[in-house]
Amino acid sequence: MLQQVDVTKRLAHYVAAARWDDVPPGVRHQAKRSFMNLFAVALAGCRTDPVEIALQSLKEFSGGRQVTVIGRPERIDALSAAFLNAAAANVHDFCDTHLATVIHPTAPVAPALLALAELRAVSGPDLLLAFILGNEVQARIGLAISPHHYDKGWHITSTCGVFGAAAGAGKLLGLDERHLVSALGTASTQSAGLCECLGWPAKSVSVGNAARNGLWSALLAAKGFEGPAEPLAGRQGFYNAMGDTPDLARVTSGLGETWELMATSYKPYPCGFVIHPVLDCVLDWRREHPKAEVTRIVVRGNPLLAHRTDRPGISTGRESQVSVQHAVAAALMFGRAGIEEFTDACVNDPGVSALRRKVEVVRDPSFSTIAAAVEITADGKVHDLSQSAARGSDANPLSDRDLEQKLRTVAASWNPRHDVQPLIDAVWSLEESADVSGLASLAVPR
Amino acid sequence: MLQQVDVTKRLAHYVAAARWDDVPPGVRHQAKRSFMNLFAVALAGCRTDPVEIALQSLKEFSGGRQVTVIGRPERIDALSAAFLNAAAANVHDFCDTHLATVIHPTAPVAPALLALAELRAVSGPDLLLAFILGNEVQARIGLAISPHHYDKGWHITSTCGVFGAAAGAGKLLGLDERHLVSALGTASTQSAGLCECLGWPAKSVSVGNAARNGLWSALLAAKGFEGPAEPLAGRQGFYNAMGDTPDLARVTSGLGETWELMATSYKPYPCGFVIHPVLDCVLDWRREHPKAEVTRIVVRGNPLLAHRTDRPGISTGRESQVSVQHAVAAALMFGRAGIEEFTDACVNDPGVSALRRKVEVVRDPSFSTIAAAVEITADGKVHDLSQSAARGSDANPLSDRDLEQKLRTVAASWNPRHDVQPLIDAVWSLEESADVSGLASLAVPR
Repeated sequence: MLQQVDVTKRLAHYVAAARWDDVPPGVRHQAKRSFMNLFAVALAGCRTDPVEIALQSLKEFSGGRQVTVIGRPERIDALSAAFLNAAAANVHDFCDTHLATVIHPTAPVAPALLALAELRAVSGPDLLLAFILGNEVQARIGLAISPHHYDKGWHITSTCGVFGAAAGAGKLLGLDERHLVSALGTASTQSAGLCECLGWPAKSVSVGNAARNGLWSALLAAKGFEGPAEPLAGRQGFYNAMGDTPDLARVTSGLGETWELMATSYKPYPCGFVIHPVLDCVLDWRREHPKAEVTRIVVRGNPLLAHRTDRPGISTGRESQVSVQHAVAAALMFGRAGIEEFTDACVNDPGVSALRRKVEVVRDPSFSTIAAAVEITADGKVHDLSQSAARGSDANPLSDRDLEQKLRTVAASWNPRHDVQPLIDAVWSLEESADVSGLASLAVPR
Repeated sequence: MLQQVDVTKRLAHYVAAARWDDVPPGVRHQAKRSFMNLFAVALAGCRTDPVEIALQSLKEFSGGRQVTVIGRPERIDALSAAFLNAAAANVHDFCDTHLATVIHPTAPVAPALLALAELRAVSGPDLLLAFILGNEVQARIGLAISPHHYDKGWHITSTCGVFGAAAGAGKLLGLDERHLVSALGTASTQSAGLCECLGWPAKSVSVGNAARNGLWSALLAAKGFEGPAEPLAGRQGFYNAMGDTPDLARVTSGLGETWELMATSYKPYPCGFVIHPVLDCVLDWRREHPKAEVTRIVVRGNPLLAHRTDRPGISTGRESQVSVQHAVAAALMFGRAGIEEFTDACVNDPGVSALRRKVEVVRDPSFSTIAAAVEITADGKVHDLSQSAARGSDANPLSDRDLEQKLRTVAASWNPRHDVQPLIDAVWSLEESADVSGLASLAVPR
């Protein structure tokens, strides 16, 4: 049995009291980077089957054309929009990561806030502050039970994301401490999501629900709907049910002084992160040698690379996301490693299939998981390439321009006429915006 | 780590193959009794704060006037109706119980099916069969992890109810085995609900979600939305995350031969079951002695009675549901033990308060939890009363007439002009009904 402590109350107190002026400039800027990345990955996911089917189903029950569905002409009620945009953002595993918890932090929180921002007046600083606080709450709740919570089968993005969405939406609604505790309580009893569903459309339901149910928890609390005093650390609460040996100090220590948002990584490629340093090498080389005839590729990396991604014989786009052979082959073939390079069609491309068979994987414990070396034999010559810190890792984060480019590339692949410059400008100028109700609609092609 | 077995597939196979002709007459009749009890408890709960606030919130996002909300003039989309009717049915803890798991089985399943039955043509036997199968699925999933799942803080009505609703709705939709596995997978990743929220409005959210999300899981599966092959017993599935040492044999052994619905108990009083034999004694005596001046009451029962309900000093209706002193006092005062006798107003009634102080509780291990003895001193005489098997227990179940009377009493307390005879007649004749789309609307006062 857990000691009863006032973890929830302390989080709620922090969220209620936090002000925009308390947020350092670096954190403010990182929040804008997270929104930029969100629009990119939601555009990438907004026409996938899970989102398409969920949208068709929800439309049958939804009222009014209230809120933007990113990348799509349909509008839908705010709860359903939060669901769909969160699901779309996470469907490709192309979204951001809080490495210490493996939470994909923006997908559950930002869509809940964007939906709310179309229902009532919200300024840019309000939106960013709510996002930063929601992120902080979910990351800290997750830190206390990482890594065993995920190892037990919990999809932590969903199970903790519902708290982040509730806290962020509660902040936007101006809830006080007591009402925020109720919002977190109603969120706690909706915390759900199993890793068994990863790789299936069902995964998107728990991620979408995290955003939808977190938002709804805050809306209910605003109407006086109450929950228990200590839903997190209470005797029959979240940590007792879902965390074997929680370290509750991690929830509250340094609150207001450190910012988990700064530990967010953004991915340049929609595949397993351990493949990223390999792709950095291959894509850089390919740019210099677009016409070379490659006959052999030897990839050398941390044993985890082989353990997780040594998969030469694959048949689906989903499997290709964790096949280093495929990633290398597609990158050599097309000079890119975007959404289209991890589809069923690309997997079944004869040229890519042939190249996959030429890739060998060598385990080398002297490499970290963000480093790799690649030896390419082409036109009789051997090329030695290496990457010490993968693009997108903490040591080599994507630049602001990289994030803009990620958004441009994804948008163009769906609709080449979708001009995303106004969206990019709007994200970078969020701090100066008095009304963000039009932000999400810039992510819809006209 | 669990052994990978095909538990989900076997449940899905059973549900897909089951036919109305396979169901014994006693089980068919018990299903009708469960619907009768459902309408009673949903009418009792339909105007409580949790339901009222949730309805006001959901209306802002809901589309159309699709489906009946029991007891209310509003109509709302089918998903929201499933939520609200389930929440209403369970809010007072007045609903039915599957004692081996402590699941309140009808609240999550029947509202999902009633909502679906207003969207498409469903016959009475279709509805009853789907209900019986949904009940079977959720009870068996829960049996494998009882009692430790509940002890860990999981509100088992919610966590298992979502599977029952998915299975039942899937049956109504005519899903085959493969699609039912997907429905159960999408349900698994929405399985949630914490006992920490019991006694708070937040409790109603997980119960409502069980019905709503189970229904939605089936509707998504019908549109081809897929989940994992073994969401229950898979390595990162439901049982690994939410059950410490599951006994998977209990899920499937005797499937199609035994019927967990027959283990359902219906409550005559909206308070803790351990108080029930005491109320039987007191109400029977009061009927014979309506004018007696009571000076002392000694209640003798199983130690659990004192452990859970020896609470003379209470101040709220919620606490009164687990106070034997209050139950006895209110029953003596008003000759009833219905919803109105467990409200704040009744708790604060001066006469009831005075009577509460005259009740003593004696622990006696020779009594079972369904038995009690009561010694009432009134007008100088001592009356010795006893009950060996509480009304509503397995050994002394409520009769069909008792269930009708439960429904009549609740309906009359809200609206004396609500004639529930057509509803009662419709429930008893469900087997002969070709179209049940009008059933729930009979539970709305004209």
